[in-house]
Amino acid sequence: MPSTELVIGIDVGGTEIKAGVMRGAEVIYTERFPTGRENGADHAVNQVLLAASSLHQTFPEAAAIGVVVPGVVDAVNGIAIYSENIYFDHVPFKQLVHDLTGKPVAFGHDVRAGGVAETMYGAGKGYKNSFFMMIGTGIAGAVIIEGVLLDSPYGGEVGHMDVASGLPCACGLTGCLESISTGPSIAREYNKRADANFLGGREVLEASLSGDLVATEVWNSAVKAIGQVLTATVNLLAPEIIILGGGLSKAGSHLVDPIDQYIDSHLTFQPRPKIVLAKLGDSSGMIGAGIFALRALG
Amino acid sequence: MPSTELVIGIDVGGTEIKAGVMRGAEVIYTERFPTGRENGADHAVNQVLLAASSLHQTFPEAAAIGVVVPGVVDAVNGIAIYSENIYFDHVPFKQLVHDLTGKPVAFGHDVRAGGVAETMYGAGKGYKNSFFMMIGTGIAGAVIIEGVLLDSPYGGEVGHMDVASGLPCACGLTGCLESISTGPSIAREYNKRADANFLGGREVLEASLSGDLVATEVWNSAVKAIGQVLTATVNLLAPEIIILGGGLSKAGSHLVDPIDQYIDSHLTFQPRPKIVLAKLGDSSGMIGAGIFALRALG
Repeated sequence: MPSTELVIGIDVGGTEIKAGVMRGAEVIYTERFPTGRENGADHAVNQVLLAASSLHQTFPEAAAIGVVVPGVVDAVNGIAIYSENIYFDHVPFKQLVHDLTGKPVAFGHDVRAGGVAETMYGAGKGYKNSFFMMIGTGIAGAVIIEGVLLDSPYGGEVGHMDVASGLPCACGLTGCLESISTGPSIAREYNKRADANFLGGREVLEASLSGDLVATEVWNSAVKAIGQVLTATVNLLAPEIIILGGGLSKAGSHLVDPIDQYIDSHLTFQPRPKIVLAKLGDSSGMIGAGIFALRALG
Repeated sequence: MPSTELVIGIDVGGTEIKAGVMRGAEVIYTERFPTGRENGADHAVNQVLLAASSLHQTFPEAAAIGVVVPGVVDAVNGIAIYSENIYFDHVPFKQLVHDLTGKPVAFGHDVRAGGVAETMYGAGKGYKNSFFMMIGTGIAGAVIIEGVLLDSPYGGEVGHMDVASGLPCACGLTGCLESISTGPSIAREYNKRADANFLGGREVLEASLSGDLVATEVWNSAVKAIGQVLTATVNLLAPEIIILGGGLSKAGSHLVDPIDQYIDSHLTFQPRPKIVLAKLGDSSGMIGAGIFALRALG
């Protein structure tokens, strides 16, 4: 879908709102706004509207606007149903941004937008069947089949797939992927075993690389659990490519290589997907919002 | 896709070929042919061509022909890449049947055809996001997202998802769903533990219902493993409906109810899919072949 239309993409995160103006994959302007969730959901909603109106005033020629948020998202009706991080509760963003700007507005989920952006313009360029996994403080995924995104409110929510970790999860169950493989859960498990005070997965990986055997064990368990979920994904969907993004993907080959090996040794006759790192970094959600905006033009 | 076009659907099984003429969901004529795989792949291919030419001669007004087979299928190019059961090895069915009849021909996978038929005309009517699982001597699935079938050669092959059964699988790995939940594997496990000689899952279920505790344990383990795979499927795809077909689905509520309970107790915030039995019986593949035929008309 190469396009010469100028669009605005807005990616609403827990800490900041990334807003940009783009033409296809080319980002020609960006601006960041604090989300200010500490001041409540209404304030955060106003910050999104401020971002939209600010970029719209600077680029009145933009043809459409895309907004993406985390949590449970009703893309069809343009509503942020629920977001744990930013306290959104049934916010009709599509309508609000349209009322403000008069432009066609698309609305969607941040990780699914990121998956679409990575598949169209990033690490998955040229592939039509991909799975994008975002591993950060939470874990979510985006399923793309024959170039079509699975965009139902709970589609791709692999963070709560059972990997039999034996660890309690915030959702109330035991054994979920998020209980063992997010940055915070990797740190928590290490801290518990080593009586330490690490903040994230990166420190555990660094300790492991320095020869800390407990750190190695914790890191390997986290990576293995991701491998389990991705192997299940390959069995079910046979994606040609799996793209890993989010904070943990900064581990690079320390993440990709063992996952690749795990998947390879847990498949027999099935074709292996390529396992790669995301390329668009923390702009993927914003660029995906721009792609959604283009689609709002029909 | 209601249609008044008459089409021919041919479902090639290990034992027999089901061929039919239909208008939409309405099957107006059927005929069965022995596959004769014991006489080799060439013979089986000829039997498929015999079925096609026979029905085409009787219904020359049929607008298109659909052929579906088990195994690894290249739907785009119309080739049966590999079939363990019938020994097909790169058979270009689409071309062969077109050369024979001069009609547009569609080609595809039997279980995926069944999933499309069940979703359009059977138990999943009215739903756009469904998962069809066929549980018989093997286990395979069909993923339908927004009304679109995932039709890549290995899509939906959930039979080899790891359920940690601890049992060896024909694929060479240990722990696959097929190692514990197919009819033959249920019987095998029971026979091993009880020193019996059961042939399929049905006898194990009957023994369980008569109070045989070993049978109950084996049945419950098989059903639990299916529940594990379907829970993973819900996490990944959030289907609105899951349709269970194949020989084991004759167990009815003895299959559906425990699976429903397993899934319910292994999800928290996620919406629950409906779990239902297939409605089209062993005609689903043939009706699906007819649907594929319609699509070949464009």
